[in-house]
Amino acid sequence: MDLPDIAPLDTRLSEALQKKIDSKTKPPGSLGSLEQIARRLGLIQNTLSPRVLKPTILVFAADHGVTASGVSPYPAEVTRQMVHNFLSGGAAINVFCKLHGLDWRVIDCGVKGGAFAAHDRLISSRIAEGTRNLLKEPAMTLAETKDCLTRGVQIAQEVSAGGCTTIGFGEMGIGNTTSSACLMAALTGLPPAECTGRGTGLDDAGLKHKTMVVEKALTRITKNPDPLELLMQTGGFEIAHMTGAMIGAAHANCAVVVDGFVSSAAWLCARALRPAIVDYTFFAHCSAEHGHRKLLDSVGAMPLLELSMRLGEGTGAALAIPLLSASCAFLNDMASFESAAVSKQAKVEAASNRLPTSKSGKMPLLPWLGQPND
Amino acid sequence: MDLPDIAPLDTRLSEALQKKIDSKTKPPGSLGSLEQIARRLGLIQNTLSPRVLKPTILVFAADHGVTASGVSPYPAEVTRQMVHNFLSGGAAINVFCKLHGLDWRVIDCGVKGGAFAAHDRLISSRIAEGTRNLLKEPAMTLAETKDCLTRGVQIAQEVSAGGCTTIGFGEMGIGNTTSSACLMAALTGLPPAECTGRGTGLDDAGLKHKTMVVEKALTRITKNPDPLELLMQTGGFEIAHMTGAMIGAAHANCAVVVDGFVSSAAWLCARALRPAIVDYTFFAHCSAEHGHRKLLDSVGAMPLLELSMRLGEGTGAALAIPLLSASCAFLNDMASFESAAVSKQAKVEAASNRLPTSKSGKMPLLPWLGQPND
Repeated sequence: MDLPDIAPLDTRLSEALQKKIDSKTKPPGSLGSLEQIARRLGLIQNTLSPRVLKPTILVFAADHGVTASGVSPYPAEVTRQMVHNFLSGGAAINVFCKLHGLDWRVIDCGVKGGAFAAHDRLISSRIAEGTRNLLKEPAMTLAETKDCLTRGVQIAQEVSAGGCTTIGFGEMGIGNTTSSACLMAALTGLPPAECTGRGTGLDDAGLKHKTMVVEKALTRITKNPDPLELLMQTGGFEIAHMTGAMIGAAHANCAVVVDGFVSSAAWLCARALRPAIVDYTFFAHCSAEHGHRKLLDSVGAMPLLELSMRLGEGTGAALAIPLLSASCAFLNDMASFESAAVSKQAKVEAASNRLPTSKSGKMPLLPWLGQPND
Repeated sequence: MDLPDIAPLDTRLSEALQKKIDSKTKPPGSLGSLEQIARRLGLIQNTLSPRVLKPTILVFAADHGVTASGVSPYPAEVTRQMVHNFLSGGAAINVFCKLHGLDWRVIDCGVKGGAFAAHDRLISSRIAEGTRNLLKEPAMTLAETKDCLTRGVQIAQEVSAGGCTTIGFGEMGIGNTTSSACLMAALTGLPPAECTGRGTGLDDAGLKHKTMVVEKALTRITKNPDPLELLMQTGGFEIAHMTGAMIGAAHANCAVVVDGFVSSAAWLCARALRPAIVDYTFFAHCSAEHGHRKLLDSVGAMPLLELSMRLGEGTGAALAIPLLSASCAFLNDMASFESAAVSKQAKVEAASNRLPTSKSGKMPLLPWLGQPND
C-alpha cells in the first residue's frame, strides 16, 4: 500500500498574509477566528488570495457487522435507506449543500443489499456486504483495510483534480459510532466509557451494553497499536475510506473539514499515519455525541461551531464551510485602510491587542490544533 | 412617544411544529440548536413553514461626545470614514452580506461632519452632530432619546413591510462601547470593570481610564433606572435607534438577530422596555469584547457562534443568519420518514433522547433565553 506523504505547511507567506489581513479596514485581530482561518488557508494553498472553490461534501457509507450485537436503536437497513434518501435529495446534508452551494458525493464503501443503481453523485467503492462483527472478530481483513485507505486517497485526489479546494468529510453507517469509540479509546488512551455515546439514540441500558462491546473489542488491541491493525480490528469500511481520503485531500493541498464524532475518529487514524495532516484540518463542530468533546480536547482542537448536533452525514461540515468562505472573502474583497482612506492613527498602537496569542507571544500558526502543553 | 407592544409568542403551533421536525429523516433531536431555531421561527411567523426572507442587516451609525475624553484608540473621524466605506462596499459587513445574499442599510443617526450624499442603501435619521460627552453631562436630551426610539421603530417596520422576516442589528460609532458599558452596568447591576472592555484596542492604561469614565457617568444614574433616562444619560443616538428598531422588528413578527456587545446593550434597553422581545431574539455570537459573555450570561442567552470576533457592524449577525436559513431549510425541504421510506423502528424509543430538555422535562421554548433559575 502506497499512502502519500503530507508536506508540512510552507510558512514563508505567513508574514505577508498577516500584513494583508492587518491592512483591512478593521481593528487588528477583530475578525478573531476568521483571521486565523484566512491565514491558514493562505498557507495551505500557498497564496495571499486563498479561495474556497467547488467545496464538496463526501459522505462515506457502509454497514457494520456489530449491529447484530444490538449497538443501535436503528436497524442496519437504515444505512441503505438513507443512501437512497441522499441520492434522491431528501436528507439534511442535501438540504444544507443546496443552501450553501456545496457539491456532494456519496461513496458506497460496502452497504448491505448489493450495489446501488448508477447515479451521478454516487461513487461505488464496495469492499463487502458490511464488516464482520467487531465484538467477535476483526471487522475487516488487512487487505480490505489497505484497500479502503488506497481507494479513499484516490477519491479525494480525483475530487481535488476537479478543482475543489475544500472537502468536508461525512458518513452514514448504522453501528459506526461503536467502531469510532474503539478507535478513539485506542488512540487517545481514554477509558471506553468516556468514548462511547448514545449514537442515534440508545437508552441507558443500550449504552451500557455498547460500552461493554467496545471494552471487549479493545481486549484484542495492543497498547500503542498500529493504525492499520486497529482499523482492521474495529472497522469500518467507510471509516477507513475517510482516513485515506483525508490523507489524500491534505496531500493535494485541500482543506480537510472534519465533521462529527465518526469523522473525527477517522481523522485520529489519519493523524496516526500522517501527523502533518493537522496543518490542513478544520474541525467543523463539536457534536453532542458523548466522547466528541474529549476527542477534540485530546488533540487541542477548537471546533468552529457548537450547535449540539449529532447527525453525521457531513451536516456540521456543510454548516462550517461558509465560515471558511467568509474568511477568504474578507481577505480578498475588503478594502484596505489605504484604499478606503480610513484613518490609520490607531493601527500601530492597537496591533498589540491582537487575539489570541500564545503564551510565548508568537502568533499560533494552528490555533485550534495547538500543543496541549503550549 | 408611542412605543408599540410586542405580543408574547402564540404557542398553539408548538406541538405541530415538533411533530413536523420529528417526521424528518434523522434521529430525533439530532439537529440540536437548529431544531430549536426552527421551532421558534415557526412560532414567530405563526406557521409550520417559516422562511428567512429578504434577511437584512441594519447598521446604525453615530458619533459620541465621550471620544473627547480619550476612550478609544481611534479618532472619532473613523465613524464617518467607515460609513463611506460601507456605502462603497469595502467593509467586512459588505463582504459578508454579499457572500450570504443579505440586504443591508446604513442608518446615519448622527455622524459628525454633516449629512451624507444620498445613496440607495443610506437612511438618514440624523439627530445631531454626535452626542454630548457622557462623562460630563447627559449624552442626549429626553426629546432626542424619544426621537431615536420612534425613528428606530419606524425604520424596522418599513424594512419588515418590504417583506423582510429577519433583521440583523449592527452598528458603527467610535466611543460606543463606553455607552454600552454604562448601559450594561446599570441594567445588569454588574460592576463597571466587568462591563468595560478594550473596544477597538485600548491598552491597559486606556482601559483603566475608560472604566473610570464609565464609573463616573454611572454616578448620575439611579438604581433600577428608567430605560429612557438611562439612554438619555449615556447615549448614544445609534444605540437608542437600535433599541427602537429591535422593538419595531419584534412588533412586526421579525426575528431579531443581535450582533455583538453594543447591539446587546441596545437589546438590554429594549428588553427593559418590552420584556416580550426575548421570544423574538437570537444572539448571533459571543464577542471577544470584555463584558459580552457576562452580558449574555446575565440574560441566560446562548449565542449561536463563538469566533472571538469584536468588529461590530453586524458582522456576527451576518455570519449567524445562515444558521436560521439552514433551520428553515431542513424544516421545509427534508424528506419525512414516510416520504423517504426510511425505517421508523427506532423513532419512538429514541424520542426520549431529545436534546436538550429542561429539568421540568418540558421542551424549553426559548433554549438560549431560559430562566437562570430553571
